[in-house]
Amino acid sequence: MSSATSHTVFPIGRVHSPLRRPGDAPKQGYEGAPNARIQIETSFLPGLDGIGPGQQILILTWLHEARRDVLAVHPRDDKTQPLAGVFASRSADRPNPIGVHRVKVLAVESDGALLVEGLEAIDGTPVLDIKPALPRAGGW
Amino acid sequence: MSSATSHTVFPIGRVHSPLRRPGDAPKQGYEGAPNARIQIETSFLPGLDGIGPGQQILILTWLHEARRDVLAVHPRDDKTQPLAGVFASRSADRPNPIGVHRVKVLAVESDGALLVEGLEAIDGTPVLDIKPALPRAGGW
Repeated sequence: MSSATSHTVFPIGRVHSPLRRPGDAPKQGYEGAPNARIQIETSFLPGLDGIGPGQQILILTWLHEARRDVLAVHPRDDKTQPLAGVFASRSADRPNPIGVHRVKVLAVESDGALLVEGLEAIDGTPVLDIKPALPRAGGW
Repeated sequence: MSSATSHTVFPIGRVHSPLRRPGDAPKQGYEGAPNARIQIETSFLPGLDGIGPGQQILILTWLHEARRDVLAVHPRDDKTQPLAGVFASRSADRPNPIGVHRVKVLAVESDGALLVEGLEAIDGTPVLDIKPALPRAGGW
């Protein structure tokens, strides 16, 4: 890693969720993750203009408890599975631990928070970006 | 932005593409983007173990020419469309300019580079992460 080519990211908001620890979270949002609130920093609220209930969005998170020095993992933390490269897995542990979560917006609350369905990120996870999902590109 | 809550990301590789400037690129990969090579840094090549031809992957990029101080954009750079919040758009201009691109792997070359189909990122774009797309989650 060279500082000449590194870049800085910062939270635009945070996840509020009943999930408190990584061990509490399902591996993927579609595996029974609870609803969550995305609290956006006040200064970034204008960026939400155009997001409404029913939309599918991508939430990019900073997986703040991840290890960044790992290049091989057991898929789904299942030690009976052979090691695979981190880029062939969705493990949180990876050189740049950025999570990509597709969720449905249930509501935009009066303070600008987004209530979303089925998010596997734990409480306090920093949010880096929100994008609309693109149905023509397979929904991502 | 507080340095206490910011995080550092760095390239694990770079895009090599015939697209030289943002104006050359289609807005989305499915809109006629050319094939591209993803050259991974040697030290990160073990992380690719398990990725092969035919797989759908997500490539996360650092959109290095983006403006980070923009919260409202004309969707698809079309000035006839009303301004919308950046988080309701896929504009490269956004507080944390991270691109998410879903592409198919065409080949893994002998030096570990990935040849991928239809990528709208321009030549030289830093790559931050690669993940398998998840068919059960709508393909993202």
